[in-house]
Amino acid sequence: MPIKPFGELATDFSFTTFYSITLLPITLNTMYYQNTDKFLISVDCIIFGFHKKELHVLLTRRPVEPKLNEWSLMGGFMEEGESLSEAAEKVLYRYTQQKDIYMEQVAAYGDVNRDTGGRVVSVAFYALVKTEKFNTSLAKKFDAKWINIKELPQLVFDHNKMVMDALMLLQYKVSTQPVAFHFFNDKFTLPALQDLYEAIYQMELDKRNFRKKLSTMEILDKLEEKDKMNSKRGAYFFTFNKHKYNKFLAEGKRFSL
Amino acid sequence: MPIKPFGELATDFSFTTFYSITLLPITLNTMYYQNTDKFLISVDCIIFGFHKKELHVLLTRRPVEPKLNEWSLMGGFMEEGESLSEAAEKVLYRYTQQKDIYMEQVAAYGDVNRDTGGRVVSVAFYALVKTEKFNTSLAKKFDAKWINIKELPQLVFDHNKMVMDALMLLQYKVSTQPVAFHFFNDKFTLPALQDLYEAIYQMELDKRNFRKKLSTMEILDKLEEKDKMNSKRGAYFFTFNKHKYNKFLAEGKRFSL
Repeated sequence: MPIKPFGELATDFSFTTFYSITLLPITLNTMYYQNTDKFLISVDCIIFGFHKKELHVLLTRRPVEPKLNEWSLMGGFMEEGESLSEAAEKVLYRYTQQKDIYMEQVAAYGDVNRDTGGRVVSVAFYALVKTEKFNTSLAKKFDAKWINIKELPQLVFDHNKMVMDALMLLQYKVSTQPVAFHFFNDKFTLPALQDLYEAIYQMELDKRNFRKKLSTMEILDKLEEKDKMNSKRGAYFFTFNKHKYNKFLAEGKRFSL
Repeated sequence: MPIKPFGELATDFSFTTFYSITLLPITLNTMYYQNTDKFLISVDCIIFGFHKKELHVLLTRRPVEPKLNEWSLMGGFMEEGESLSEAAEKVLYRYTQQKDIYMEQVAAYGDVNRDTGGRVVSVAFYALVKTEKFNTSLAKKFDAKWINIKELPQLVFDHNKMVMDALMLLQYKVSTQPVAFHFFNDKFTLPALQDLYEAIYQMELDKRNFRKKLSTMEILDKLEEKDKMNSKRGAYFFTFNKHKYNKFLAEGKRFSL
């Protein structure tokens, strides 16, 4: 009996015994790839930004039915010539006009009735955006708003779950890799970095322990310049030094914060 | 100008100004969901098993072109009435005849040319299978083989990457959640559990430290019975106690191994 590993097809394969064995695979291939259901694939982006000591998500009012005007993530359909990542980059660029945004795939969401407008499998990506650079006229155009993640409203479909999954992945990522720096426009102060980590972890961190972990890794450069906006004494700006980080990794050490 | 968040459609939307505002969303909706590319979606399963102190992956020889007879993960296409998880469960059941297998999604793979047979977006799932229960006659039927993960051959398409991504996710999972017990048929000895963790982490672990972490959590039950197959003195069997684990969680503690 021929094996049908790629789904049970309606056609009975026993006829294939009439053909030579070399023809069989080609016949199977053509049928496997052709007699199979096709699906709409969308990407949804959880765009994270750090603003006023809080983690925010960029949300929009959905411009189409179903669920017109309800809060939604930024999304779009994947097109024929695009990879999943390229589709996500397209959506990110449309809503932020920024390129080279740090982005990571969260998961694929494939429940049969997840989208009440049609059968759509959606792949969620989170992105870390520098809110300082964010073009506010774009926000107006797309009816977009930065919402504090602690005050997340009811979103369409399974978007709330996507945000929570993205947050969990982000928590893991920033604890094991130096990606949180993507929230800043190059430089940051240590108090701001701790505020960011506290916003992502949604808990307070011990300052001495946080500073100790950071300084032990020796992956930052201290600048001459101080931020005097947020305290009288001011706080020195730092930058992430990729060269030092590569050396750190080469020594077999692991980022942990 | 109307906003086109779900992909740039070929149709010009300016005609919509002729319609009343209440009709507009319905018109948009119909077009958004209909004039959009559709794709084949497959699932690929990284079936992990623990055998002779080593982590193994169940592989098969691909029965169709392209790449006929080459090593491949177990896969299949998603069908209309199925969710992604249901499609993965279908594939797992076909190859293992086991239900209620512990399974987790790894990621979606959507590069344009990833599958040389056609444009297919694949979602990978890993599954933890009890090799003791595994039906070897099935293996014969599907030309399947348990391969030591340290000796992984060249697999078709991006399947090697899927295995590596699944392994990384598994490493994270077993370090933070009590999922490794799914590899065993209910009971296990502490030496076997450490062997399993060493096989997953691909490094040796300090026995005293490993035992200490385990006993501190108090989530296992020690049985009267001993395993005398693997040592003269024998090693007591243990089982995971879900009730104790829930209590452990309720106390605000976190699994770590």
